[in-house]
Amino acid sequence: MKATIITIGDEILIGQIVDTNSEWMAQELNKIGVDVYEIISISDNREHILSAFAKAESQSDIVLMTGGLGPTKDDITKKTICEYTNDTLVLNQDVLDHVTQLFAKYVKDAMVDMNKDQALVPSQAQIIKNDFGTAPGMWFENNGVIFISMPGVPFEMKEIMLSGVLPRLKAMPGLPFIHHRTILTAGQGESTIATRLEDWQNNLPASIKLAYLPSLGTVRLRLSSKGMDKGHILKSVDDQIKELYLLIPDIIVGESNEEGLVDQVSRLFKEQNKSLATAESCTGGKIANLITEIPGASQFFKGSTITYATASKVDILGIDETLIDKYSVVSHEVAEAMAVAAKKKFESNYAIATTGNAGPSKGDSDAPVGTVYIGIATEDESFALKFMMGNHRERVIQKTVNKAFELLQKELLKKGGQ
Amino acid sequence: MKATIITIGDEILIGQIVDTNSEWMAQELNKIGVDVYEIISISDNREHILSAFAKAESQSDIVLMTGGLGPTKDDITKKTICEYTNDTLVLNQDVLDHVTQLFAKYVKDAMVDMNKDQALVPSQAQIIKNDFGTAPGMWFENNGVIFISMPGVPFEMKEIMLSGVLPRLKAMPGLPFIHHRTILTAGQGESTIATRLEDWQNNLPASIKLAYLPSLGTVRLRLSSKGMDKGHILKSVDDQIKELYLLIPDIIVGESNEEGLVDQVSRLFKEQNKSLATAESCTGGKIANLITEIPGASQFFKGSTITYATASKVDILGIDETLIDKYSVVSHEVAEAMAVAAKKKFESNYAIATTGNAGPSKGDSDAPVGTVYIGIATEDESFALKFMMGNHRERVIQKTVNKAFELLQKELLKKGGQ
Repeated sequence: MKATIITIGDEILIGQIVDTNSEWMAQELNKIGVDVYEIISISDNREHILSAFAKAESQSDIVLMTGGLGPTKDDITKKTICEYTNDTLVLNQDVLDHVTQLFAKYVKDAMVDMNKDQALVPSQAQIIKNDFGTAPGMWFENNGVIFISMPGVPFEMKEIMLSGVLPRLKAMPGLPFIHHRTILTAGQGESTIATRLEDWQNNLPASIKLAYLPSLGTVRLRLSSKGMDKGHILKSVDDQIKELYLLIPDIIVGESNEEGLVDQVSRLFKEQNKSLATAESCTGGKIANLITEIPGASQFFKGSTITYATASKVDILGIDETLIDKYSVVSHEVAEAMAVAAKKKFESNYAIATTGNAGPSKGDSDAPVGTVYIGIATEDESFALKFMMGNHRERVIQKTVNKAFELLQKELLKKGGQ
Repeated sequence: MKATIITIGDEILIGQIVDTNSEWMAQELNKIGVDVYEIISISDNREHILSAFAKAESQSDIVLMTGGLGPTKDDITKKTICEYTNDTLVLNQDVLDHVTQLFAKYVKDAMVDMNKDQALVPSQAQIIKNDFGTAPGMWFENNGVIFISMPGVPFEMKEIMLSGVLPRLKAMPGLPFIHHRTILTAGQGESTIATRLEDWQNNLPASIKLAYLPSLGTVRLRLSSKGMDKGHILKSVDDQIKELYLLIPDIIVGESNEEGLVDQVSRLFKEQNKSLATAESCTGGKIANLITEIPGASQFFKGSTITYATASKVDILGIDETLIDKYSVVSHEVAEAMAVAAKKKFESNYAIATTGNAGPSKGDSDAPVGTVYIGIATEDESFALKFMMGNHRERVIQKTVNKAFELLQKELLKKGGQ
């Protein structure tokens, strides 16, 4: 079953917002066996919406669209749906009641006509309830193709998808089983790996697709397969993964399917009932921030100090000032001392620390731009490692964050394996 | 001049990555007066790439594409360009020299044939140098339409756009002037504002387009206009903005054009030569993280403590334990004390603190999910404010972060205005 996603809104085409809706929808659709054939982003323009509907209808079984459902004049999706399907807008009492309730509960202003217009829906559309907002989801068909219209506000769209769209699509007959497995490698580049895997890749069954996904020092190898015979698919992909482990054992660091590296590390902390603190300088809280985005982080995350200024490394973490004077603030010794101090201050089992120079200009140290030290304190030991992360500020930070999680994962897996 | 952006890669359609390239390209193209008509995301599939090329060519003057230029077999963009333009791949010596140099400098592995293939380019394409990677940018024409192909790695694409694409597009004749101004409002909903502005909106000149952009407690009103007469456009938009200030003075909190709220606050700190520290609980370092993403943050940002566990509020920040016992960790008193403690610990001029319950379950306090206190310490005073941020974890955090920057902005503007 093939889907086209249409995101509607001028703000996407002028680059005012990043379209994260498509990514999320694509992910969820893939999980239930719906192929996303194309993602189209267009403006709030009648002709363009109509032509996108026609194109999507011609190439897919399901068309999912977001955006253009606000109460103001620039939002024209509902009107245009009516024009496309030869329908008219009618008042839906359930939606009106819901909007009225939302206003009574959350909004201080009185309801205006425009809010009531949110309850106008195409007469042939089935309503999908939007618990978090005034614009309902709508499900209709045209020439046998399913169309689903949802608001563009991400958390409203997600709720509608999870409660009203995905369960219904999943129940439809004929959905194939889709299976992805992704091997995470580190230490060699895409082309070197591809050369090592050339014979294997040439002999891959046609039903299995391979992709190389390079990202900041790691390359993920994704195997994908789909079909109606779930057992066969699972086994054939598993067989190939086993071969990979035999062919490139030196560079495989794990599997990363649904679960990203941050999730993996978080799960390991919870499973092992250990806690973590961070002391961040050049990463500016990004490590802590990624951890606390995960619900339940408070189970293992104690906290962090972000000591951006050199003086605060002394005052807040209690790093020995002579250490900084002797080795400089960007050094092996200071990174390790920061990790040890954070572990002690926060009374955690593990701590990770970063100090470095992300650029663009040199900071409180003479270390060249891109020099980063990561310190780690475990229950048994503490140490620091030096990395040269290039000269691109954002990348230096992101690579440091990735590397920090990689180091934590390695330490936790050691323990888990014991 | 109209552009279509095509992003090529299976990883987008299965939701493995968010397509941030399109947003950035759209933004930059808009700045120089190029309209983005449509963004299309497709897989690494020959037929689909060919049909996207044909569609894009039929509807635009410029086609920008990213992705599918890696050295491995799944990347087929170059081959498909040749098929579309009746061209063949030839070895480009400049690119080969560049790839060889990159390998000598950064890569430990020996170069393999696949790396040399990066120097194969369509014979009619002009090369745009890629300083950060092995896949060059390519510029070619087909039936009078400009096609530009770039790698999908964001920082490589950005460098190619900035150095080789945008300057060349900008120099082309006939580009209109595009002008956006965005007013930031707070305190009323989209529909209430629209009702207040109905007459004004009905009388807007046809050349000016209005959009409502609601986001977590704020609504931005964006006016857009374009044409060849820059002076006239600037004045006519400015006239309308002035009217807005007369019509809704009570809810306008500022303008947010290119500059987001975080940038504004950072600029104010630098201009006023003041410093900031943060003490974050429920926001988990997100405030600090947003600040440190801005180059030059070290000029005013001293650091942060993320005290996720209650005990660490006492140990690290030195909050009086009896205060927590008496008022609970999510309270007016603790938020204010955290800000005061952070200001003192980091020796900063300002400090902002967050404590709250973002959910999904209750933490170390009895406060209902969504309760947040933001504490602020300035040079003259300290206080805390209570907010109810709803029951959606991500939103609670994001709204708290926005509100914190809003409060800082307000305090700094007070000072700046004196």
